[in-house]
Amino acid sequence: MAQSKHNEYLPGYKPSQVIHHEWRTAENSAGYLLPTLRSMREKNPKLQFLDVGAGSGTISVGFAQHLPEGEVTVTDLSGEILRRAEGFAAAAGLQKKNMKFQQANAYELPFPDASFDVTHCHQMLCHMDAPSDALREMLRVTRPGGVVAARESDLATQCIWPESPGLRRFFEVTEGIFKVAGTCWTGGRQLLSWALKAGATRDQIQAGFGTWRFTALEDKNVWATAMAERIRNGEMRKKGVELGLITHDDQVEEMATAWEEWAKQDDATLGMLHGEIIIQK
Amino acid sequence: MAQSKHNEYLPGYKPSQVIHHEWRTAENSAGYLLPTLRSMREKNPKLQFLDVGAGSGTISVGFAQHLPEGEVTVTDLSGEILRRAEGFAAAAGLQKKNMKFQQANAYELPFPDASFDVTHCHQMLCHMDAPSDALREMLRVTRPGGVVAARESDLATQCIWPESPGLRRFFEVTEGIFKVAGTCWTGGRQLLSWALKAGATRDQIQAGFGTWRFTALEDKNVWATAMAERIRNGEMRKKGVELGLITHDDQVEEMATAWEEWAKQDDATLGMLHGEIIIQK
Repeated sequence: MAQSKHNEYLPGYKPSQVIHHEWRTAENSAGYLLPTLRSMREKNPKLQFLDVGAGSGTISVGFAQHLPEGEVTVTDLSGEILRRAEGFAAAAGLQKKNMKFQQANAYELPFPDASFDVTHCHQMLCHMDAPSDALREMLRVTRPGGVVAARESDLATQCIWPESPGLRRFFEVTEGIFKVAGTCWTGGRQLLSWALKAGATRDQIQAGFGTWRFTALEDKNVWATAMAERIRNGEMRKKGVELGLITHDDQVEEMATAWEEWAKQDDATLGMLHGEIIIQK
Repeated sequence: MAQSKHNEYLPGYKPSQVIHHEWRTAENSAGYLLPTLRSMREKNPKLQFLDVGAGSGTISVGFAQHLPEGEVTVTDLSGEILRRAEGFAAAAGLQKKNMKFQQANAYELPFPDASFDVTHCHQMLCHMDAPSDALREMLRVTRPGGVVAARESDLATQCIWPESPGLRRFFEVTEGIFKVAGTCWTGGRQLLSWALKAGATRDQIQAGFGTWRFTALEDKNVWATAMAERIRNGEMRKKGVELGLITHDDQVEEMATAWEEWAKQDDATLGMLHGEIIIQK
């Protein structure tokens, strides 16, 4: 259960690199869990909720809003990003209300067995060498009668229109960098298999697929701006050069501009599948 | 507007080739439209609904059930499949109630301008040479204040787990056959662009993505049985051989068995993105 089993979260945590994380809400990224949360809350308004690897915590804030009498404990391996999450909670007026923050390793959660009613993660498992060990640990800290919920993007299903040489290069470079960093490119489709390896039985698991969609102008702008920034100024550019995937500055500008041009077009769309599971403990 | 602009619906219409079409329901294949339908029905219970290229009509039956005081007109280019649709309507007790059937070419719908409140198609446009001409025709027969709704699979996003050599070969062969037949492999992501080419403006169009998901045992069985049958006994096998994509009988059996084995596995999942649009006329 060594921390070394974590893989690198490659884009890093600079504000410019995580701005698009903050587009994520409980509604657009955890909609599959909300009906379960509502029905559990009706029976027990004081639900204890654990958000694992919560990054900048915008989804966690949504959960806290859905659980006014409950409590959301927000964890991440990075103290740096957790401070940003605290900022979001403060801005939503929830930090000293029903949200708590604690730095934690998802493989060794610092909580006793059966501490939480709901344990959740989003787009975390694909960054780990042993995703089923993390799910097993999430099951451990969840109470019998509670649920573990997880959602993973299936990056291989990203589909964008219209295409352009710059966007094609961006996806090739990103895939190359993420694969070297150990990120699973097909996590969405594997999520159910990870849950079974973690010890859940098939009849405990509800499994499905959901989407991310970028079709409205404001959503496209957030995403395109973030991708252009990542490739122009972030760790992604550095890694791409190191790995020989980027050999000229012109390529960087071609990729960044391709995103900016894409977002302006009326017919531009981007979609992506996510695997979604709810494990009944 | 010649019929020749239609591309071949390659799998053909034998019952063994369309059995998995009948898995489709308004709920699992047109969920994005149902809230709009409900709110339109509240204002006008007698909605006139046109289903274009409706195939065996199981989705149309669902619409008719949602519109007990309305009327659903079901069309397809094939009279053969339309008779099968009539059988489904009869079995649901709706044939002589609020469903009508009429053979029709989607490029030249046999209806006056502004005849319908809702005009719908599902997985039809990707089989056509000129999808935006069909959408323009659907807009023509729709009343001002009504909507045109379309959903297209994005076949390139099919994601299956676990993989096997037989499944990989199946997807390669299918892609090869469909592409030769002129089927668009990336229709989901292009749907919005087709609507704009059909003359709709961006602010008339709600665009998103939805999924098909095969994770429950019964859904996986329907799909796997249909795919195995297609490749063992259908037009797909014949075309695959003609195109040199299938060179040995062993390959057929490998592909068919791979589907049957896949469906039995607890961790088996299959997902696929669909583009979805609602155009406000």
